[in-house]
Amino acid sequence: MKTKHSLPDSCTSYHDAVRLELERVMTKAPLALCDMLRYHMGWQDEHGYPCNRESGKFIRPTLCLLSCQAVGGDTSRIMPAAAAIELIHKFSLIHDDIEDASHERHHRPTVWKLWGQPQAINAGDAMFTLAYSALLELKENGITDERTVGSTRILSQACWELCDGQYLDLEYESRLDITIADYLNMAARKTAALFAASTSLGAYLGSEDSKLVDLFHLFGKDLGMAYQIRDDIMGIWGMEESTGKSASDIAQRKKTLPVVHGLQNSKGKMRERLQRLYCQDSIEGEEIPEVTKILEQLGARDYAENLAEQYYHKALAQLKAARLDTSRQAPLEETARFLWKRDF
Amino acid sequence: MKTKHSLPDSCTSYHDAVRLELERVMTKAPLALCDMLRYHMGWQDEHGYPCNRESGKFIRPTLCLLSCQAVGGDTSRIMPAAAAIELIHKFSLIHDDIEDASHERHHRPTVWKLWGQPQAINAGDAMFTLAYSALLELKENGITDERTVGSTRILSQACWELCDGQYLDLEYESRLDITIADYLNMAARKTAALFAASTSLGAYLGSEDSKLVDLFHLFGKDLGMAYQIRDDIMGIWGMEESTGKSASDIAQRKKTLPVVHGLQNSKGKMRERLQRLYCQDSIEGEEIPEVTKILEQLGARDYAENLAEQYYHKALAQLKAARLDTSRQAPLEETARFLWKRDF
Repeated sequence: MKTKHSLPDSCTSYHDAVRLELERVMTKAPLALCDMLRYHMGWQDEHGYPCNRESGKFIRPTLCLLSCQAVGGDTSRIMPAAAAIELIHKFSLIHDDIEDASHERHHRPTVWKLWGQPQAINAGDAMFTLAYSALLELKENGITDERTVGSTRILSQACWELCDGQYLDLEYESRLDITIADYLNMAARKTAALFAASTSLGAYLGSEDSKLVDLFHLFGKDLGMAYQIRDDIMGIWGMEESTGKSASDIAQRKKTLPVVHGLQNSKGKMRERLQRLYCQDSIEGEEIPEVTKILEQLGARDYAENLAEQYYHKALAQLKAARLDTSRQAPLEETARFLWKRDF
Repeated sequence: MKTKHSLPDSCTSYHDAVRLELERVMTKAPLALCDMLRYHMGWQDEHGYPCNRESGKFIRPTLCLLSCQAVGGDTSRIMPAAAAIELIHKFSLIHDDIEDASHERHHRPTVWKLWGQPQAINAGDAMFTLAYSALLELKENGITDERTVGSTRILSQACWELCDGQYLDLEYESRLDITIADYLNMAARKTAALFAASTSLGAYLGSEDSKLVDLFHLFGKDLGMAYQIRDDIMGIWGMEESTGKSASDIAQRKKTLPVVHGLQNSKGKMRERLQRLYCQDSIEGEEIPEVTKILEQLGARDYAENLAEQYYHKALAQLKAARLDTSRQAPLEETARFLWKRDF
């Protein structure tokens, strides 16, 4: 058993290579606005001095590279795709922080808190652009134009779903009638789509077998669902020190799975109280542990834990159906298990 | 002489085709958030009912198609590229309106005024994604993968410069020491880069001659500079009914060319007054005509008019250097002249 917070080797094996590739991509396009991007990556402080506050675990690019490895591909050639995936994720965080009015991310002020909303919107747009520019460098690594176009298509499809998921997430904030199906549709788009893009892109660039690519797409999608539900659980029952979030999902009235389950399955006075709390502009102070307790009494945590487990096993089944070399596939399995079970 | 506001035929010849292509692109990806995008295009009102409030003149896609036509290319094949260019422009407007806190655009509430900032940021991101998705459809029109990759590169480069230009524009707002060179650098990125991408993309997809593509890039860049300076002049001396802007550039303390010229070339009391006004949080009421008058006395309008004319002639010289069939090139020349001389 690993200690809390330590990542399995499979999950860290590509960390330095991804970091180097991201540095390379950003150094190729040096602009004044890159200070904001480098701050957001945790490489610089707000004054432009180097620092080591990188908080990302590069989960998505790691999944991309492990998927490529699992199908027998050459990971060194697809580093631009891994970087592109991470840049899309990071761009979405810059904009999410503005949209959620989050003051902190991983114990540091968010980009908009330091540079203001206008520059932060613009910084997100720049990072988004950089993702596409990175992807185009696949050509320099000997990837054919056909595969580069195909990769751009996979990325664009995921970005489109990402925006749709974010739309739904924001729209749900003011509603109390969200069903589990609504939630799952939102999570599939907001989170699982980029996971699916990560794994399918790795398989697509590592193998010519389109059936494999489809299986890796489903694998990533189901794993993304398990990951998001785990995130929802940690957003309520995780410690602030672990998640690095300045406010819990409850304070922001996010319609995460335990809350949706609770709102759907409560009755009588408990339902009345929960609905009243979620009608408020925000949930504060002692109301937060009160919501947590109500959700626990309604079995919302167990429900979410079970559903995450189901998605994890569904994901693994896709991987098994691919009938790959066990040793090649083992690191991917290890990372998947870690993502499902993590406690931060 | 055409009447005020009427566009030359060359400028409207592709309007319907571009509109149809944009409709097609957006219909292929029907999502709830598309209501915001269709509203922004002027095709729907805020309740989702069809309307005809399209305000765009499709200048950039028209330049793209006229450039393709000028080099002897088949414009019908490159419609996805024309649509992509317009989508990039339209995405940037959604985010610009938030960044500038503009309440209205073309006499209609801006997207963020109706749906709030979070959804508007997200709507812009979605439109940005849609631009890349549109471009990928070049393949279906028989454009090679190599050219599709090349087109994506041209678009990404322009987007990167666009973000940098926007960064500088925002940064200049709080500064009084902007030089003419600073301004020109900003305008080259914020506006001229997308013009250059429009004309060079048209030439790139219509001809194999890379020297032609370079000339069209320079042509678009210089034309974009003339266009931006004309925009600056209209932002001060144009009528509100014509520009459709709810507040003049002076009220927003934008460092447009006439203002930069005025701040640089004023002396004594006039300089003191201008600097004091531009130190305020905003310029209001009678202060606006006061600034206009000071700028006129300093010859700022004449200076800007002359510079726009120089860029226009430089642009035309690039076109002439391409030694194209005069009849093929005539519509592009007519449109260029219109963009330089327009009075709205």
